[in-house]
Amino acid sequence: MGHAEVHKKILSANDTQAAVLRQQFDSDRTLVVDLVSSPGSGKTSLLEATARRMAAGSKMAAVVGDIATELDAERLRAAGLPAHQIVTGGACHLDARLVTDGLEIAGFGPLEILFIENVGNLVCPASYFLGEDFKVALLSVTEGHDKPFKYPAIFARAAITVVTKVDLLPHVDFDVERVRAQVASLNPSAQVLLVSVKTGAGLDDWCDLLQHEFAGRRDASALLETP
Amino acid sequence: MGHAEVHKKILSANDTQAAVLRQQFDSDRTLVVDLVSSPGSGKTSLLEATARRMAAGSKMAAVVGDIATELDAERLRAAGLPAHQIVTGGACHLDARLVTDGLEIAGFGPLEILFIENVGNLVCPASYFLGEDFKVALLSVTEGHDKPFKYPAIFARAAITVVTKVDLLPHVDFDVERVRAQVASLNPSAQVLLVSVKTGAGLDDWCDLLQHEFAGRRDASALLETP
Repeated sequence: MGHAEVHKKILSANDTQAAVLRQQFDSDRTLVVDLVSSPGSGKTSLLEATARRMAAGSKMAAVVGDIATELDAERLRAAGLPAHQIVTGGACHLDARLVTDGLEIAGFGPLEILFIENVGNLVCPASYFLGEDFKVALLSVTEGHDKPFKYPAIFARAAITVVTKVDLLPHVDFDVERVRAQVASLNPSAQVLLVSVKTGAGLDDWCDLLQHEFAGRRDASALLETP
Repeated sequence: MGHAEVHKKILSANDTQAAVLRQQFDSDRTLVVDLVSSPGSGKTSLLEATARRMAAGSKMAAVVGDIATELDAERLRAAGLPAHQIVTGGACHLDARLVTDGLEIAGFGPLEILFIENVGNLVCPASYFLGEDFKVALLSVTEGHDKPFKYPAIFARAAITVVTKVDLLPHVDFDVERVRAQVASLNPSAQVLLVSVKTGAGLDDWCDLLQHEFAGRRDASALLETP
């Protein structure tokens, strides 16, 4: 079997397992958000800030993928978010099997919102469905405004692009409108949010969006159960 | 054949092809440097600055890997560095076959220094030898000082870690000494350089290092040919 065929088979096995996860999330009425970005774009920082704003009112938790170390899960737990670290060893992305096993070990119980913080990588995580409601792509203003077209798969697939570290905009050459235009051409229905966890800019919009999506899911589930 | 075995076979096929490249580079006395980092750490910007300082005195060129777009090769050519873009499609890293084919299409002729700008990804490129003399890992100060331990393979393998965008140090929480300590524990012989292409800080050291390495290679080749 050649490499392409093996890859196809892996993706298909992943989709089967992701469907099992999706069924569980549906039955628990859990909103599941998969965060994907380069290393250092601010996934963990965004989740820390989210936990500080929302954890009191919502039952939330996170699974966190990294090649090595437990650092990110420790940071999230310190911010009040129950978190389980999945150490992938060499693997450059999470897959549905790793998430399934991680959730089983974590034993969070039913959640309102589950965050999946993927391995820092704009390439490989784009191809893997983890049963999530939607993917969020993060892009920090220090990475440059050319990134959506250079990494089109993830920006096409993400329902939301969060532009992070906007407090640094005065110090870097980054054109937000060029990012908006690229994202719009890759995924016309995607939203773009501008956020700084340092100043708090945009965090209300981000938390409102999560709460809106969660309320939407709960209402949809209730409708399905109406006799 | 399982995934692990296929992966092993791919790496072994890559090493065979990389050895062919290495032989060619040796016979041409070309210094070959493979630059690896997250998207947006500043690989292209560092090469632009390098070209502006050194292109007049050295025969240099670059091959540039990206999932999509020719943007980086265009930037390098505009800076005076002959450059060939390798568009990898889905592939998250360059391999020796892509570099061989890219060089054949580019037709640079014998070079003193060849830069390989890898796909923006801290994970996958670490495993692939491309015939280079050494790998350089870039880490921008905006990505956070926890990265070497979180992505140990590349920081262990890179002979040089270039900390980029040091002009932004006053605006971010980044501890250079923590990076030095992590790199030293992963690779005791690695060098750490601090660079800003915006202010020019550290560029002399970087260019001196390249010239020193090139001179070392040339002298070694001359020694080998002494009857």
